Amino acid sequence: MTAGGKAHPGNFFEDFRLGQEIRHATPRTVTVGDVALYIGLTGSRFALHSSDEFARSLGYRSAPLDDLLAFHFVVGKTVPDISLNAIANLGYADCRFGAPVYAGDTLSAQSTAIGLKENSNRQTGVVYVRSTGTNQRGETVLDYARWVMVRKRDPNAPVAAATVPDLPAAVTPDKLTLPTDIDLSRYGNAVAGSPHRWGDYAVGERIDHRDGMTIEESCHMTATRLYQNTARVHFNQHAEKDGRFGRRIVYGGHVISLARALSFNGLGNAFRIAAINGGRHVAPSFAGDTIYAWSEVKEKADLPGHRDAGALRLRTVATKDQPCAEFPDKGTDGRPHPAVVLDLDYWVLMPR
Amino acid sequence: MTAGGKAHPGNFFEDFRLGQEIRHATPRTVTVGDVALYIGLTGSRFALHSSDEFARSLGYRSAPLDDLLAFHFVVGKTVPDISLNAIANLGYADCRFGAPVYAGDTLSAQSTAIGLKENSNRQTGVVYVRSTGTNQRGETVLDYARWVMVRKRDPNAPVAAATVPDLPAAVTPDKLTLPTDIDLSRYGNAVAGSPHRWGDYAVGERIDHRDGMTIEESCHMTATRLYQNTARVHFNQHAEKDGRFGRRIVYGGHVISLARALSFNGLGNAFRIAAINGGRHVAPSFAGDTIYAWSEVKEKADLPGHRDAGALRLRTVATKDQPCAEFPDKGTDGRPHPAVVLDLDYWVLMPR
Amino acid sequence: MTAGGKAHPGNFFEDFRLGQEIRHATPRTVTVGDVALYIGLTGSRFALHSSDEFARSLGYRSAPLDDLLAFHFVVGKTVPDISLNAIANLGYADCRFGAPVYAGDTLSAQSTAIGLKENSNRQTGVVYVRSTGTNQRGETVLDYARWVMVRKRDPNAPVAAATVPDLPAAVTPDKLTLPTDIDLSRYGNAVAGSPHRWGDYAVGERIDHRDGMTIEESCHMTATRLYQNTARVHFNQHAEKDGRFGRRIVYGGHVISLARALSFNGLGNAFRIAAINGGRHVAPSFAGDTIYAWSEVKEKADLPGHRDAGALRLRTVATKDQPCAEFPDKGTDGRPHPAVVLDLDYWVLMPR
Repeated sequence: MTAGGKAHPGNFFEDFRLGQEIRHATPRTVTVGDVALYIGLTGSRFALHSSDEFARSLGYRSAPLDDLLAFHFVVGKTVPDISLNAIANLGYADCRFGAPVYAGDTLSAQSTAIGLKENSNRQTGVVYVRSTGTNQRGETVLDYARWVMVRKRDPNAPVAAATVPDLPAAVTPDKLTLPTDIDLSRYGNAVAGSPHRWGDYAVGERIDHRDGMTIEESCHMTATRLYQNTARVHFNQHAEKDGRFGRRIVYGGHVISLARALSFNGLGNAFRIAAINGGRHVAPSFAGDTIYAWSEVKEKADLPGHRDAGALRLRTVATKDQPCAEFPDKGTDGRPHPAVVLDLDYWVLMPR
Repeated sequence: MTAGGKAHPGNFFEDFRLGQEIRHATPRTVTVGDVALYIGLTGSRFALHSSDEFARSLGYRSAPLDDLLAFHFVVGKTVPDISLNAIANLGYADCRFGAPVYAGDTLSAQSTAIGLKENSNRQTGVVYVRSTGTNQRGETVLDYARWVMVRKRDPNAPVAAATVPDLPAAVTPDKLTLPTDIDLSRYGNAVAGSPHRWGDYAVGERIDHRDGMTIEESCHMTATRLYQNTARVHFNQHAEKDGRFGRRIVYGGHVISLARALSFNGLGNAFRIAAINGGRHVAPSFAGDTIYAWSEVKEKADLPGHRDAGALRLRTVATKDQPCAEFPDKGTDGRPHPAVVLDLDYWVLMPR
Repeated sequence: MTAGGKAHPGNFFEDFRLGQEIRHATPRTVTVGDVALYIGLTGSRFALHSSDEFARSLGYRSAPLDDLLAFHFVVGKTVPDISLNAIANLGYADCRFGAPVYAGDTLSAQSTAIGLKENSNRQTGVVYVRSTGTNQRGETVLDYARWVMVRKRDPNAPVAAATVPDLPAAVTPDKLTLPTDIDLSRYGNAVAGSPHRWGDYAVGERIDHRDGMTIEESCHMTATRLYQNTARVHFNQHAEKDGRFGRRIVYGGHVISLARALSFNGLGNAFRIAAINGGRHVAPSFAGDTIYAWSEVKEKADLPGHRDAGALRLRTVATKDQPCAEFPDKGTDGRPHPAVVLDLDYWVLMPR
């Protein structure tokens, strides 16, 4: 029992065991209410997630949820067990999206501790987990590895020998999936809002997504609460005023969603995020920041089992208070441009 | 290809051709999620849009969407093609609402360029469009003319001879519609929240709607994103700080919605907006403004085919930071009271 | 007819009659959209209200609405008739929750004036009402007494002799209800997010709920508008800047919802609020305040007809800008700790 009584203080580094399996709380039936709020908070306008008619014309049951919305729900569930005492979200890897998520589905999440490594200061350690989101039929909708730096409760607590998992630098294209009954022959450019198909993109091509979106406290907090993500730094100004930044920090996932929504202009036919290879929250974002984004095509690949679609590996860079017409990027010294807040490496699917 | 690569910069004046037909992107399945968010952002409380039971008692399938919510969805779709480079929304005319919109319907929008007129400075021109919103059965839910001032990409670009369409000053009552299977005999004043029926209103009568609603950045941005309206001035503080007003401008349609929601107090039985004759955004609104409204009855008319309902032509004036007990209006010089932000001329339906 | 014309100024003290029955306007079909927005605005994460699958496993038709969400809808409906001219919400008593509310249900509200007492200054009086919320089948979902201080229109208006109703200090456990077809044998702690069941709590036990949630103007206004609550002090900064506090006041019910959402950490298995015995909004809350909460177990009771569940009578205290590790409470002089904003006495149900 802790000082707070039955309230849980969250897990500390020494609470984790290698191979430990954690079933996360609060299953969530996702609904058209979540979809409306997601559009309202991000401005996303991909046709597949916006229109049941469009989705059905491609073989979907109805409009599937935005892949990132499903991602945020699953990540949110893991927070109370994994990262409530996290100092930093260090990375994501090998994130693959599986079964489409439809309004009415109920999502659950579970994690396995796949790596533990105490830091040399003995104050903190890195916890590696593989987390899986499933629907009510037990189908995997999302699967990813994530590592976070977690405080120790007691610096002197003994911990097991370090184990660091071997994680792929990128998801290989053979692991990207799209249900076999999806048929893109009826996909229409005009209705989707972009004339550019998979074949029109070239490796190395860059796109400035042009628009900017200013973040408000209410918007990022509402989004993060919608995902039932309880990480404290997003919500408590009274505590954060004395914290490292003096302000609430925007959930990094909200910045990913804004960048994806902005990327519609130039990537409007990227109808699915199939995988996230890795991502770095280069700098924190705060209310008042205006997010801009640009993308680069890193790789092109066939999509197994689908002649009518291809995969694009993208790098999307988001900045704050910095338009992206000149593609702000790493300098010659390898350090990120000071305005960069996000550097995301992922695979999208696009009709051919 | 533009500097931004595949991102579209929006159309400029010389990109439009008289008679050009544009099918707008991103069909939208409207849902109870949109309805909840609309109530949350406007405070609207008309019984017809709030209660399936009430709606069914009148012959509706379920609660139809607020007419303005449908309007905002359709307008939002037209923005990327029509008004992304607009300097000013100059006007609306001949806006008629058709088939009721229900949760589950999918809305699409198309426009025809019906007029083009270059301004004498050759920097800009006025584009006139007729835009139509349809549901998944192809039924028209909304039809209106709109004209906007759009920048030219190149002042020297040649343009066609000026064509200005002939638009009616007001929708005539014979063009107002209500489905024939709607029966208002079971309409109850108590449940709807107003004792005043069509016969109780007199031409020339004025109503102060009393309440005020303060606009927050988060609220107007969330509403405007919900409509997938991408007009840049609403969202990007980083750019707008150097713009004409130094601030983000509130989507004029949000002000219309606030005025309509406020008008419930005094016009609670105005269960449908049947047409918008014209409207003027007299001045921009910004976060922090408190919107008040008053209305005047301009005309009364029978409703074709419905003995149990009548039409009221209203003028609703919205102000900022100015209560409306004294009906702030044009001065003797014909200039609007400095607090006025909106002057809307429209037809509502009311049970007799 | 008032100065504002057909707009209603709200009822004044002398407008009420003992025994008067008021049917409140604007029936409301509650939807998954409302549920999503409620989660987005409060961060609530009780499994029963979050997951249809979890709810069905216990015998519910689908996830019932959060009891407080139903409460806010019913209270909101009463505002235009009861408390638009209220100076203060003085108290609640004998509030009992009945039939579960499901998405798709339509809620209506009616009130009876059960007490009237003019204050000695003759400027104001106290109105006592019993209000009932019902669904479309006429089943009671909520029933409570409430008293508010209301302005008189005319201090000299004659009023009836004072009548003060006899209200219970607390709902007795025999009046707590849970549908008989609810079976908690399949209730899972892991999925619900708490290892603590009814038997684990002791009278006198205190719990610090640890987290804090900062209120934004946009969040409390959106919540309060969602409930179609029209009390003016929440929405109009232009008027409130000259009011008692110089600021908009947060709807007290929003603070209750935040405290309940925070209480998940320590009371995660309190799956239902069965009754509210009384509550005091000790001090107003404003945007910028960070709400914390702690709870104390006041009483334990069997639940009639249910061997698998028990009732806990809780007192939950919410503070602003004051963490609750030391349980800020009344001082030896009986006066509340200056940070306390809410002191709520209620019954929750928990599986045994």
